[in-house]
Amino acid sequence: MTRRRLTLVGIGLGHPDHLTLEAVQALQSASVALVTVKRTGDPLAAVRRDLLAHHAPRLRVVEVVDPERDRSAASTSTTSGYEGVVGDWHEARAQAWEQALLEHPDGDVVVLVWGDPAFYDSTIRVVERVLARGAVAVDWSVLPGISALQLLAARHRVVLHEVGQPVHVTTERRLREAVEQGQRNVVVFLTSGTDLSGLDDWQVWWGANLGAPSERLVAGRVADVADAIAAARAAAKAEAGWVMDLFLLRLPT
Amino acid sequence: MTRRRLTLVGIGLGHPDHLTLEAVQALQSASVALVTVKRTGDPLAAVRRDLLAHHAPRLRVVEVVDPERDRSAASTSTTSGYEGVVGDWHEARAQAWEQALLEHPDGDVVVLVWGDPAFYDSTIRVVERVLARGAVAVDWSVLPGISALQLLAARHRVVLHEVGQPVHVTTERRLREAVEQGQRNVVVFLTSGTDLSGLDDWQVWWGANLGAPSERLVAGRVADVADAIAAARAAAKAEAGWVMDLFLLRLPT
Repeated sequence: MTRRRLTLVGIGLGHPDHLTLEAVQALQSASVALVTVKRTGDPLAAVRRDLLAHHAPRLRVVEVVDPERDRSAASTSTTSGYEGVVGDWHEARAQAWEQALLEHPDGDVVVLVWGDPAFYDSTIRVVERVLARGAVAVDWSVLPGISALQLLAARHRVVLHEVGQPVHVTTERRLREAVEQGQRNVVVFLTSGTDLSGLDDWQVWWGANLGAPSERLVAGRVADVADAIAAARAAAKAEAGWVMDLFLLRLPT
Repeated sequence: MTRRRLTLVGIGLGHPDHLTLEAVQALQSASVALVTVKRTGDPLAAVRRDLLAHHAPRLRVVEVVDPERDRSAASTSTTSGYEGVVGDWHEARAQAWEQALLEHPDGDVVVLVWGDPAFYDSTIRVVERVLARGAVAVDWSVLPGISALQLLAARHRVVLHEVGQPVHVTTERRLREAVEQGQRNVVVFLTSGTDLSGLDDWQVWWGANLGAPSERLVAGRVADVADAIAAARAAAKAEAGWVMDLFLLRLPT
């Protein structure tokens, strides 16, 4: 007996034309789509629903309510505390997914992943936990999708690094650490209105809600554009009801 | 009068289903595709030709022979020497492209870019030089494509970094520098059979010719799999006539 297939599908950032052909094929050949929704209302749920309606209108969508994550503990300064909280949350998520898979036992499953599963996404780790629990057996695979850092670079028409140089991809939480290490090209994910003070002479290429109608782009010297970024971030949030942003910082030569 | 459009299209790694829908649309709506071919014979030319035959069989393909790059000077140890050589090469390439665009003046143009234009690719810089020369005017844009580091992660079903950690993307030339900085998650592009000695306890996820029939994957502790990687690299090259590989290295906790 062949086992059911579970495919993690990187869907890019919500624009239906940003999917790869193999991603579309995976959506169209599956029986069930698992999508996680936040308990408090998920601003991206409508984007995902439109995407599925566009590409795979007959796909059965099973919504899995995401367990609460303990944000208070996550904001403590110790790394192990943060990772411990994330670990607990992954396990709770795995239980919810296991239950959904057991309740919908037939046919191939797709899990939609915002952007690309390889960057700042927990889906791969959650699937590993589901399988480690042992109640569900699937053959699983991953299809890459366009990541926010690629769309940022494409919109600004930049390469993410200078000739022969590294690019360092990190989070707002670790930006200062990267600067102290001497990084010259830094992409920052998981921002929340990043404080760029002290980086006045760096070049920044910033984007919010990339791929959506509320997309905003700002580029320039940090000291010159910091206010414009704050204003554009607020405008994107006002227009869409949500904001997801990231940026590339480059130390000038 | 609207200017002709020039679109840099990230095509992924040669598999026709790895293109995004917008990339396919760009190929199908263009009049001319500019593709660069190496003077000495280009092993990827056949892959690209098959891809165009699959998606856009009526597209006119204009081959631009790539100028010679001075590899002897590029192997000097000074960074400025390397960048200077690359700069000269970009300018020679820009001249060749300018000539091709002037010889084929009608309709929209696509330039096929292996992987994603944002990582270790010179196409954006060459287009900037073409426009700076002033003889050709176009409206240009960039469409992202699946990059080798994404397909590597997908095939191995890994996230490129640990929870909340950075991922450092660099070249073989700068790998030791990254290790000395204390990087824990390093993706290495532009390899040529990288020497991993001294990194025995690191985990490695390696891949060659990703997306092609000659694809090879190896993962494990460096000391345990270094020989397997060398053998798989040789096998991929023997099978395809070319080899392009990259890897993720992770320091164990």
